[in-house]
Amino acid sequence: MKKIDTAIARQAFDHALLTHDQAFGEFFLAKLLGFTISYPTDMCRVEFPVLDFMFNPQGSLHGGIVALAMDVSMGHLLNRLHGPGATLEMKVQYLGPIRSGNVVAIGSVLRRGRSIAFLESRLTDADGALAAIATATWKVLPISPRSAGAPTT
Amino acid sequence: MKKIDTAIARQAFDHALLTHDQAFGEFFLAKLLGFTISYPTDMCRVEFPVLDFMFNPQGSLHGGIVALAMDVSMGHLLNRLHGPGATLEMKVQYLGPIRSGNVVAIGSVLRRGRSIAFLESRLTDADGALAAIATATWKVLPISPRSAGAPTT
Amino acid sequence: MKKIDTAIARQAFDHALLTHDQAFGEFFLAKLLGFTISYPTDMCRVEFPVLDFMFNPQGSLHGGIVALAMDVSMGHLLNRLHGPGATLEMKVQYLGPIRSGNVVAIGSVLRRGRSIAFLESRLTDADGALAAIATATWKVLPISPRSAGAPTT
Amino acid sequence: MKKIDTAIARQAFDHALLTHDQAFGEFFLAKLLGFTISYPTDMCRVEFPVLDFMFNPQGSLHGGIVALAMDVSMGHLLNRLHGPGATLEMKVQYLGPIRSGNVVAIGSVLRRGRSIAFLESRLTDADGALAAIATATWKVLPISPRSAGAPTT
Repeated sequence: MKKIDTAIARQAFDHALLTHDQAFGEFFLAKLLGFTISYPTDMCRVEFPVLDFMFNPQGSLHGGIVALAMDVSMGHLLNRLHGPGATLEMKVQYLGPIRSGNVVAIGSVLRRGRSIAFLESRLTDADGALAAIATATWKVLPISPRSAGAPTT
Repeated sequence: MKKIDTAIARQAFDHALLTHDQAFGEFFLAKLLGFTISYPTDMCRVEFPVLDFMFNPQGSLHGGIVALAMDVSMGHLLNRLHGPGATLEMKVQYLGPIRSGNVVAIGSVLRRGRSIAFLESRLTDADGALAAIATATWKVLPISPRSAGAPTT
Repeated sequence: MKKIDTAIARQAFDHALLTHDQAFGEFFLAKLLGFTISYPTDMCRVEFPVLDFMFNPQGSLHGGIVALAMDVSMGHLLNRLHGPGATLEMKVQYLGPIRSGNVVAIGSVLRRGRSIAFLESRLTDADGALAAIATATWKVLPISPRSAGAPTT
Repeated sequence: MKKIDTAIARQAFDHALLTHDQAFGEFFLAKLLGFTISYPTDMCRVEFPVLDFMFNPQGSLHGGIVALAMDVSMGHLLNRLHGPGATLEMKVQYLGPIRSGNVVAIGSVLRRGRSIAFLESRLTDADGALAAIATATWKVLPISPRSAGAPTT
């Protein structure tokens, strides 16, 4: 039986329980996965450490976690630029396995229209090598009058 | 500040810590998310309860978790039929938000060749309505002599 | 120098010039490629003969022609059920090369909402084997008052 | 009944019949669509004029033709860098309709491994605006001894 490092996982979990807030930037999954989210010009950057509780059965970062981080890098960017959206579809290509270190996903906008936005994200591994790319199509949700003046993230 | 149900999250986490084994079917993420994995003829079925710690900032099941579950339904099927593979790419379409109940992802094979396999997965919500579809391209990994006689999952 | 069968290509071209009408079902590309378009219940069926003028440099049906036929099978279905739409994105998986015979693409709707529709298409070769699958996301265009009462195709 | 410009279509067709050669760079479809294919450093550039025989029923460049051009920009690049490959899958996002002028698709490699290559292509309209993006996964075909020393394109 192969176990993960339970101390590290417990620390991540307890920290997430304590610090999360179900809003952009602070929601539980982002905290559990240790996401540091920032906004360089016209982009959203999601950095997180690859820990063994995020692994697939073959001992590398699970493709679903990669997808989650890239989705966050696009959704948070769209939210910052406009307001909340909904992912209509996302495609991720996995260029190779990732086993350790910090990875960084950078989301950017390809085109944003009134009702539809096209975004992409690129994820690099600890050596800065491209490890995954994603493209997605988002539905731009109408902004409610209350939130219109005050972008959330 | 909006918090998740911490008791439910803690129960899921503690259960995962206790029961996981970093192998097909039992790895930590599958346990944390409460996946029940079974193998109807030529398919892999992943069922799990939608809990609020899996939510995006907008209060529905995070697209990354949907992707993770669908990826598992395809990867575990491929592993059972042949042996471990690697996701080259996956595309997920999100037909609508999922907020509660048990969801089910069913993975199936479109075509499996010697080096490449094409799979799809369909995820239905608690009402049985189609909520997401995924297609993926997998690299079929050569089976090592040791594992050849004994498919793992 | 390797030439296509020029007599067959010329016949296809002349026939298309003569019979086309730039509207659903009859537009030039559909005529040039010999599409026979029909509408079994809730589906659109596009059948056409694989001819060597449609080949890639490696001597099989060009992936772009496969994409075109599958796009037509979805766009024409959406047009029939609702009215014209616009492809936001389409992904095609190519399960193997196609070299001769008649192929059939069948488009169907996964979900149609007010502003977005999700469709798929499956293309089978002359032996009825699955040769390509496509999924797409469409923008449903508002119906103009004039065309509302009279679906075009 | 709405007709295409038959003189322009006939000119394109006759030119293609005369000049094509079923090999990379010169195959019939590339000639029919007026592709000018060149190879800036590490890229493949496909330029062609948008003519009305390439239109969909709604009067803009057919998505299948866009897909075809982008596929060519990737497949020809892979062929030049390595040798012939096969498209496993391609996803195209359509950022807006294209109605006239010359469009340019630029294919580039994201990562090329021994058996799999990941490529992308970006298509700009006559104003230089991004109009479509594609990503694709290719199977790298083993090079036959005879062709190994002499890349075709």
